[in-house]
Amino acid sequence: MLNLQSTTPDRWLRQVDENLEEILIDHAHCENKAARAALNLLIAYVENASLCRAMSEIVCEELEHFHLVLDLLTERGIRFRRIRQSNYGAQLSALIRPREPERAVDRLLVAGLIEARSCERFDLLRRHLDDPQLVEFYGSLFESEAAHHATYVRCARDFASDSDVEKRLHELALQEARIIEVGDTLPRMHS
Amino acid sequence: MLNLQSTTPDRWLRQVDENLEEILIDHAHCENKAARAALNLLIAYVENASLCRAMSEIVCEELEHFHLVLDLLTERGIRFRRIRQSNYGAQLSALIRPREPERAVDRLLVAGLIEARSCERFDLLRRHLDDPQLVEFYGSLFESEAAHHATYVRCARDFASDSDVEKRLHELALQEARIIEVGDTLPRMHS
Repeated sequence: MLNLQSTTPDRWLRQVDENLEEILIDHAHCENKAARAALNLLIAYVENASLCRAMSEIVCEELEHFHLVLDLLTERGIRFRRIRQSNYGAQLSALIRPREPERAVDRLLVAGLIEARSCERFDLLRRHLDDPQLVEFYGSLFESEAAHHATYVRCARDFASDSDVEKRLHELALQEARIIEVGDTLPRMHS
Repeated sequence: MLNLQSTTPDRWLRQVDENLEEILIDHAHCENKAARAALNLLIAYVENASLCRAMSEIVCEELEHFHLVLDLLTERGIRFRRIRQSNYGAQLSALIRPREPERAVDRLLVAGLIEARSCERFDLLRRHLDDPQLVEFYGSLFESEAAHHATYVRCARDFASDSDVEKRLHELALQEARIIEVGDTLPRMHS
């Protein structure tokens, strides 16, 4: 799915069942971090007009989702709070090559893979959970994550040939699959 | 105007007349920096729901303005590029007290003063320039800068009493007026 090289292991759904509240809180933080990542990309490559346009749209959509998750937490009486992050994002960031234009390609593809994994997990959640509100919620967010994935891959093509982007996306997706296979003991959206 | 303790000196309008292209490019960067500042505030005080809501709105409005300025540059055949920043933002940031909750108050009030100064200058531009497109453009942006100023001051009241916020806003506005009085040899939106 969406260039991912693995499917989520069942272990993650057990973490969801046992720690739904914490997963929802983490989801809010994830939307926030996604907005920040897109704005950082806009700032880093501000002279690329089409990238700026695409990143602006993502920033605003992620912030909108952030508020949707916050509203959901409020309705459920769950206090939104800071929690320790999973090691997923840091491990992916460590794969980014330091020199331009490879750095741009990797930053965009890593952001795209995070969106792809979120998309795969939102799909799992909407099929796994019994709660009708959450089923609808994750169904409604599913498509925009897939669109963001496609946008990031498209933007990466401004910095390398199509075949180089495809090759690097495959390499990074294999690494992402390994990170997901090991997982994280903290129950998180990407654990 | 909007708690400012000085009006822009005529020297700035001479900089505008002699360097309009550079001022317009800087304006695009300013909108971008304003989006980043609002998102940084959201992230720093993420547990404050009303602040998060207000900052999200500002982020998206500033990004929208950023693209309006980019479109204007494109129409005029001006290449958007990186330029050296004026010293205005750094000098204001240096005034921020390091400890919370004073830090939150100062970050919000500094952001609010930058919006107020932009507002004052957009008003000057719409009255000073001969170009009908720019007159309309700066007229259209004027109001939202004033609204952002009010939003920042309102958010600061979550971290200190109304009278403490008012007192600190006055102190910071005096400092801001001194920075503006000295100015910057670089022609910029806040030089």
